[in-house]
Amino acid sequence: MGHCIFCSIIDREAEASIVYEDGRTAAFMDIRPFTPGHLLVVPKTHAANLAELAPADGGAMFQVGQRLAEALRSSEVAAEGVNLFLADGVIAGQEVFHVHLHVIPRTAGDGFGLRGRPTNPPREDLDYLAASVRGRLG
Amino acid sequence: MGHCIFCSIIDREAEASIVYEDGRTAAFMDIRPFTPGHLLVVPKTHAANLAELAPADGGAMFQVGQRLAEALRSSEVAAEGVNLFLADGVIAGQEVFHVHLHVIPRTAGDGFGLRGRPTNPPREDLDYLAASVRGRLG
Ligand SMILES: [Zn+2]
Ligand SMILES: [Zn+2]
Repeated sequence: MGHCIFCSIIDREAEASIVYEDGRTAAFMDIRPFTPGHLLVVPKTHAANLAELAPADGGAMFQVGQRLAEALRSSEVAAEGVNLFLADGVIAGQEVFHVHLHVIPRTAGDGFGLRGRPTNPPREDLDYLAASVRGRLG
Repeated sequence: MGHCIFCSIIDREAEASIVYEDGRTAAFMDIRPFTPGHLLVVPKTHAANLAELAPADGGAMFQVGQRLAEALRSSEVAAEGVNLFLADGVIAGQEVFHVHLHVIPRTAGDGFGLRGRPTNPPREDLDYLAASVRGRLG
């Protein structure tokens, strides 16, 4: 897989501000935070994307995200809310190809959010796509 | 807890385009999709937010998100990438107080993304916040 910065952090070969570590996961500060206290949770076993990620590692990542969300609120970050975000694929904004869950602390007026315009499709369109996705579930 | 639209969907008392269901979770189309095929994954047991959510339910939600991400790519939605997103708290953009994981299919030029400006804090600031969060982990 060549060089992977997150594997290097897990192996303590690259600098990072590590917040949490267990058998499956590690969490550290994003060096390009959207808000102060922005964290990343990664699996210790390299997986480029959601398709490669062992479900047990995915579940553990989310659970660490839950614990970090709570800790961010009572820490000096003083988060009033938290966003979890994950980008799977270049088109989705993924830049490091070792899957990572962003844990982004939120405070009033921090300027972070989603960009996009929700639509109001008719129920038949929703039902049509639902059936298509349902048919592809393994 | 009063009326909860997602509990009503789970109980089949409110209309929804359901894509997936198991003992812990359900997934259905968002009626205000950012992109076509936008799904929500919810726990069947009502939990207003991440703090109330049983970790086993959180892990299961993420794993369903992984499966849906894969299905969205091969379905007629033809996703080229996927974003997972969760808002915990009003400040974070949460609007329905039954925790839900957004699974947002992405295609080139769909206009969806994050709003915000990453910063480049010095390592000592990252280390300081990391220590504060670490100290609050249970
Ligand atoms: Zn890696
Ligand atoms: Zn509910």
